[in-house]
Amino acid sequence: MTKADILVHNGTILTMDDQNRIVPDGLLAISGNTIRYIGQPARNASQREPGGAEKGSVSAQKELDAEGGLILPGLINSHTHAAMTLFRGLADDLPLMQWLNNYIFPAESKMDADFVRVGTLLACAEMIMSGTTTFCDMYLFEEEVARAAQEAGMRCLVGEVIYDFPSPNYGEIEKGFIYTEALIERWREDPLVNIAVEPHSLFTCGEELLLKANDIALGKDVPLILHLAETKEELEEIEKRYGKRPVQHLKDLGLLGPHLIADHCVHINKSEIALLADSKVRVVHNPESNMKLASGISPVPEMIAKGITVGLGTDGCASNNNLDLFGEMDMAAKLHKANKLDPTVMDAQTVTKMATIDGARALGLEGITGSLEVGKRADLIVIDINKPHLIPMYNPYSHLVYAARGHDVKHSIIDGNLVMEDRRLLTLDVEDIIEKSKEKSRKVKEWVK
Amino acid sequence: MTKADILVHNGTILTMDDQNRIVPDGLLAISGNTIRYIGQPARNASQREPGGAEKGSVSAQKELDAEGGLILPGLINSHTHAAMTLFRGLADDLPLMQWLNNYIFPAESKMDADFVRVGTLLACAEMIMSGTTTFCDMYLFEEEVARAAQEAGMRCLVGEVIYDFPSPNYGEIEKGFIYTEALIERWREDPLVNIAVEPHSLFTCGEELLLKANDIALGKDVPLILHLAETKEELEEIEKRYGKRPVQHLKDLGLLGPHLIADHCVHINKSEIALLADSKVRVVHNPESNMKLASGISPVPEMIAKGITVGLGTDGCASNNNLDLFGEMDMAAKLHKANKLDPTVMDAQTVTKMATIDGARALGLEGITGSLEVGKRADLIVIDINKPHLIPMYNPYSHLVYAARGHDVKHSIIDGNLVMEDRRLLTLDVEDIIEKSKEKSRKVKEWVK
Repeated sequence: MTKADILVHNGTILTMDDQNRIVPDGLLAISGNTIRYIGQPARNASQREPGGAEKGSVSAQKELDAEGGLILPGLINSHTHAAMTLFRGLADDLPLMQWLNNYIFPAESKMDADFVRVGTLLACAEMIMSGTTTFCDMYLFEEEVARAAQEAGMRCLVGEVIYDFPSPNYGEIEKGFIYTEALIERWREDPLVNIAVEPHSLFTCGEELLLKANDIALGKDVPLILHLAETKEELEEIEKRYGKRPVQHLKDLGLLGPHLIADHCVHINKSEIALLADSKVRVVHNPESNMKLASGISPVPEMIAKGITVGLGTDGCASNNNLDLFGEMDMAAKLHKANKLDPTVMDAQTVTKMATIDGARALGLEGITGSLEVGKRADLIVIDINKPHLIPMYNPYSHLVYAARGHDVKHSIIDGNLVMEDRRLLTLDVEDIIEKSKEKSRKVKEWVK
Repeated sequence: MTKADILVHNGTILTMDDQNRIVPDGLLAISGNTIRYIGQPARNASQREPGGAEKGSVSAQKELDAEGGLILPGLINSHTHAAMTLFRGLADDLPLMQWLNNYIFPAESKMDADFVRVGTLLACAEMIMSGTTTFCDMYLFEEEVARAAQEAGMRCLVGEVIYDFPSPNYGEIEKGFIYTEALIERWREDPLVNIAVEPHSLFTCGEELLLKANDIALGKDVPLILHLAETKEELEEIEKRYGKRPVQHLKDLGLLGPHLIADHCVHINKSEIALLADSKVRVVHNPESNMKLASGISPVPEMIAKGITVGLGTDGCASNNNLDLFGEMDMAAKLHKANKLDPTVMDAQTVTKMATIDGARALGLEGITGSLEVGKRADLIVIDINKPHLIPMYNPYSHLVYAARGHDVKHSIIDGNLVMEDRRLLTLDVEDIIEKSKEKSRKVKEWVK
């Protein structure tokens, strides 16, 4: 008899490993923050899969019964502006510049650290409750984001947004680099929080800023993250300023490389896809935000065909307006079918990978999370399928993408810690967060009056 | 003090009436199957809205506290094949003909009445639990669908699918008309069930069948419902057979009129939109199914601009794979923004109307349901907004379309009967339905082996 800290059993395990191994009637054992065994329970010893550290029967302090449901890696939201939960539904269905200039920018100029703290805690509550265990954030006051993630027990890659004008957080541009470097040093050893260098975009960051940001990222060995080719307006602006398209501009500056994570990539052509692929740039697809803001449709099937790693993100709640990656998976699968008039593109398994292992690869965390494998950190969720809308189940991937939604997540474990059990959040005080969020929203209404 | 049977209070009432009236801190009283009062509670008597039958304080046998949430008309799913819940996820991401010929048609040929009964009960459970109170169905064994809806307490418009080949239900074509006429007579006085005449489509129904179906619909004063211009293949087939496009073919047969409900209308051009508008044909939009099957994108903004009434449907669970109209609203709003590259099209209020009052208009039930108005039948739902993903709330329409999902529906009342309270179904035995659905799915696996 081997001892584990947590046992999850009686469910179909979708490992999302390189062989897309599925273990029916599976059992998964966790010790500390690490997965120690994946296979079938002792009564089926003869059918047991190889590779588990222990093969005998296992007991644990805590046992979670999946009740015939699905056990899979926690989802990875590869692009968020978490605190924008507090702007959810503030303004919708407007032309982009009216939305930005009359609502988002005025509100953001009044924000402070506590606003970001509360908004991020609200986002963490929503993300955990809809199956996300790792998120990648770009916003202001990111020290607060890192602390909120730590409090929630969520894994994250975060970075302070830097651009060519003063910030409500750090003030003058130069201090943005100092703030970022301090973040990197302060969180370097943290088991959950990872830091990136995050210049906002090519149209808000001049060459000097981009080069300096790139130097810091390379020097500190952390990812460089920016918005790239999101809108037609951006494309036109960059062409006007530099006489070339965004991807070429990045290439000429020497910024294309395996350290770069490019969000959106809506307006890119074939040769740019080839450039990104050759440079091993990682891309994050945000279909709902791109649709809602009418930015366009990113050529994701083409990028995947060229071998580019593509993760999935919700973007901020002001342009989505939720952080539910199940809805995002559904949208990603259906949007490209409609766009290509081909029902075979973006099949359910491909999309599930985008939200799990490919998301981890996009963030450079594939050694730690994104799949269920012995030796990896225990980041996993359990889906309850005993509900009318999840009956019957012929194919688990189809179920996840086309039928399940965030609310169907029953349990969540991050880094070996049970953070949600039977939909009860164990790390956060939801009522307190809701109350504080409502207070903040009353301020927002005054700011944009 | 006036007596009511059910009182719903402490919520924001979205009436969806012609003025889009919203009643904050609203109270709604139901006697029998009818809405008797909508306004604010007695303590705010001075602010009370006119038009209520009673204006004093009201007491009731049953009081439902909306806890600050949203009270709105029950949603209307204007196009379903309800029993196809049992094919949910059976086959996805396949070319259309492979999907139909290898999976759907073989399975449907083996179906019997009990299969449709169980599948429809499963669909009713899913629909009520995701906020739908009325659905419009086309399938086989529709007597079973009507009975299942009656058992579930759901309002519906249903009809037996008729086409140019024998049916596993009624046998030879001629019996399809007899079966349909019997349905119409049997259910004529039912408070919940309404019957339509439903020839499948122009490519499965010849001229003779279409003309006869039309005669019955006009003679019995019930709607005529068919799939129209869903796929490019249909368009090409009709052009090949008749030398004209589907809408013109219908016009030449004399079938265009206010009695016609046309599902899909994906492949229609400007002049066809004008024809449909002039003829007062009603249309049902099914964005998720059209996307998943890669049928194309229906020109819905153009149809609405021309004054066509457009309802919203999920289509069957084999091509969606869920019956959640909240997800469908989100998809409808975002799809057309992306398609038109215009964030202002299909705003949240327009889309909410499609799923409520415009759905009722599409089905000819606008005198009965689709809005909350004194004298109308009490079909309504309550949304619980005390959850992280629904905090804060700036705009209720935005919340419904972009953030809420089926699971956020807390209570449901249909025709004055409480059918779901605190997410517990009161009319159906969910565990029994789930068990029977699993049994049926085991048979389906054998059928398509």
